[in-house]
Amino acid sequence: MDGTAIIYTNNSLQGPSAKTAHGLLRHGKRYRILAVIDEAHAGKDAGSVMDGKPLGIPVFGSLSAYLSSGLERARYCIIGIASAGGRIDPAWIPTLEEAIQAGMSLVNGMHHLLIHQPRLLDLAKEHAVDLIDVRKPKPASELPFWTGDIARVGCPIVPVLGSDCAVGKRTTARFIEAACNDRGIRTEMIYTGQTGWLQGGKYGFIFDSTQNDFVCGALENAILECWEKERPDLILVEGQAALRNPSGPCGTEMLISGRANACLFVHPAGRTHYKGWEHLGLDLPPPEEEIALIRAFGVKTIGVALNTRAYDPVRLSDYRDQLQARLGVPVALPLEEGVKSLVDALETFLQQWNQERATFT
Amino acid sequence: MDGTAIIYTNNSLQGPSAKTAHGLLRHGKRYRILAVIDEAHAGKDAGSVMDGKPLGIPVFGSLSAYLSSGLERARYCIIGIASAGGRIDPAWIPTLEEAIQAGMSLVNGMHHLLIHQPRLLDLAKEHAVDLIDVRKPKPASELPFWTGDIARVGCPIVPVLGSDCAVGKRTTARFIEAACNDRGIRTEMIYTGQTGWLQGGKYGFIFDSTQNDFVCGALENAILECWEKERPDLILVEGQAALRNPSGPCGTEMLISGRANACLFVHPAGRTHYKGWEHLGLDLPPPEEEIALIRAFGVKTIGVALNTRAYDPVRLSDYRDQLQARLGVPVALPLEEGVKSLVDALETFLQQWNQERATFT
Repeated sequence: MDGTAIIYTNNSLQGPSAKTAHGLLRHGKRYRILAVIDEAHAGKDAGSVMDGKPLGIPVFGSLSAYLSSGLERARYCIIGIASAGGRIDPAWIPTLEEAIQAGMSLVNGMHHLLIHQPRLLDLAKEHAVDLIDVRKPKPASELPFWTGDIARVGCPIVPVLGSDCAVGKRTTARFIEAACNDRGIRTEMIYTGQTGWLQGGKYGFIFDSTQNDFVCGALENAILECWEKERPDLILVEGQAALRNPSGPCGTEMLISGRANACLFVHPAGRTHYKGWEHLGLDLPPPEEEIALIRAFGVKTIGVALNTRAYDPVRLSDYRDQLQARLGVPVALPLEEGVKSLVDALETFLQQWNQERATFT
Repeated sequence: MDGTAIIYTNNSLQGPSAKTAHGLLRHGKRYRILAVIDEAHAGKDAGSVMDGKPLGIPVFGSLSAYLSSGLERARYCIIGIASAGGRIDPAWIPTLEEAIQAGMSLVNGMHHLLIHQPRLLDLAKEHAVDLIDVRKPKPASELPFWTGDIARVGCPIVPVLGSDCAVGKRTTARFIEAACNDRGIRTEMIYTGQTGWLQGGKYGFIFDSTQNDFVCGALENAILECWEKERPDLILVEGQAALRNPSGPCGTEMLISGRANACLFVHPAGRTHYKGWEHLGLDLPPPEEEIALIRAFGVKTIGVALNTRAYDPVRLSDYRDQLQARLGVPVALPLEEGVKSLVDALETFLQQWNQERATFT
C-alpha cells in the first residue's frame, strides 16, 4: 500500500469516462481512498453514485470543501477520469494546483504527462510532492521482446475480452479473480491498463503506452513472471478495447502472443454503436460475431458477462436467457448477480484442461 | 534527397535480415547508395548478391577497404540489418566507430538508440557528425489519436498484408506503386516501417516504435495527409508482421482503423513455420486461412504475391497455378515476373469502386 488518496473526477463520477475512479473504488491494494472530488455529486456517497451500493466514501463538490471538511488529509490526489487520447483537460489544472499546494502528490494515468507541464513541475518542487505519471513510456532498452517462453506456463491463460471499450472487462476480471480465489482456485489477473497498476496489480504492464513492437513481449513477460512467482491454478488477462474497435483494435495480442487457452467475453447489452463513435455510424457487432472472430483465432469463449448500463432492467433477464441459449455458454450479470456461472464454467474448463495435460504428459 | 550513403550489413546481405538494405538498394529517394560493407560478399555487386540482378553498387569486405578504394566518400553510413527486438549488436560497434571517425553520420533503424551509447555520442560530437535514430519514439503530445476523419478520403485504401514477417510486403507494395503510376493510376504508398522512411517515403510513420494507443491515429493521419496533399487514385498501405504472427500480431489496425477497401496479400511459398520461431513448432497457416481471416474483418483480398525464396523454382509455376485456382484471384511472382496481374486486379477494383461511388453520390 502506497498510502491514502482522494480521486478527482470533474463531474464525471457517474459516467463511463470515470472508469479509473470506478476501478479504484471497487478494488484497490495500492491506495486507501478517502474521498472523491466531483461537483455534480457533492454530498453523496461515491459508491451510491457509481452503482447504487454505498461504500462509506464521501463525495465533495470541490477540493477546498474536502480540505476544510476535517477529514484525514490524503497523501495522493489521483486523476480518476480516462479521456480519449489521454489528454489533460485544462479545466482540471486549478484543482491539480490546489492539491499540490495542499501537499498532495498527483497521480496521473493520462498519456499527456504532468512532468511536461512546467507550472505543475515548479509547484511540485516548491511543495516537495511527486508527480506520478503512470503511463510514462519506457525506453526500448527496458522492454522485453517476445521469446516464446510463455509455452512454459503450466496453467491455463484466459483473457477477458469484450466488444468495445469501457464495458467492464477489468471489473469482470477482478470479480472473477476474487470469486475463484474464494472457491480455492488460486487465480491471478494480469493487468494491462493504468487502472490495474493504480489498483496495486502485481503482474502486468500498461499496454497502450508501450511501444507497439514490445507489447507482446511485455505481455509474455508479465504472464511468465506471474507463473514463476505464484504458480497459480489460473491466469486471467485484462483485455483492452475490442478486436474491431475503430480507434484501436486490440485482442489478437492476448489471443496469439498471450497463448490464450480459452476466453471470457464482456458485452454491453443495448449498446448499438462503438462508444464515442456514434456519429460515424459504426455499429457495434452482435456478441455472436465477435465470439466467432475470437474462434477464428483459435480460441473458444467459455462464458459471457453483460454490462447492463444501457439496457432496460425489466427486459434484461429475457435478453440474458436468449443470448445464453444462442451462445450455449453461461451469460452472467456481474454487477446485479455476481459471476458464479462464469466461475463454474472456468472450473469445468480447468478440470478438462488438467485432465488433458495429465493424459499428454 | 539527404545525400550519399553506404550500407553496413555485417555478412547478412544475402539473408532476409538485411531487408532494410534490400529496400534501400531497390528503391530510394532519400539516399544515393554508393557501396555496401559486407565481409561475406566482398568484391561482388550488391544487386547480384541480393537477387541476381546487378545494380553497379560494389560490396566491400570492410569499411577500411571502402575508405581506401578511392570511391566517393559517403555522407551517411546506414545500418542495413533488422535484428529481432531491434538491438544493436556489439559486433557492429567497431565499424560504426570507424565510420564516425571517417566523418560519416550514422543512420540507425533499430529500437536501441545510438544516442544512448555514450562512446558513440562522444565520438560523434568530436567528429561533428549526426547520430540519426529513425525509430526514436515520439512523445504522446506529438502523436494524434484516431478521429474517424479517414472517412473523408475519396479513393480506395488497400493494405498489403502477408502471412509472416520478412515476406516482401513493402517490396511488393513498392513494385505495385511504380507499376500503377506507369499505367496512369496515381498511387501513393503509406510507409509503416523504418525502411519506408529511409527510402524517402513522404507519408507514413514507424508503426512499431509508436506508443500502442496512437498507432491507429498515426496511420489515419498519414493516410489523410496523403489524400489531402496528393489526391491520388489509390492509396496502398505497407503491412507489418501478420494477423497471427506470434511475436506481434498486426493487421487489424490497417483493416479496421485504416478503413481498408480491399487487400493484397503476400505469402512465402514453401515456408512452413513462422520465421524465427521454427523451434516452437508454430506452423505458418496456409494463405487460404489468412485470407479468410481478413475476410472476417470485412475486407476482400483481390490479389496475392508469392515470395519464392524458400521454394523450388522448378515447381513454382505449378504451385502458383494451383493457388490461383483455389483462391480465384491472381497470384503474382513479383521478383520473377513483375506485378502486372495485381495491377490489373487493382484497376478492375478501382473501376467498380468508382462506379459504385458514382451511383451512391
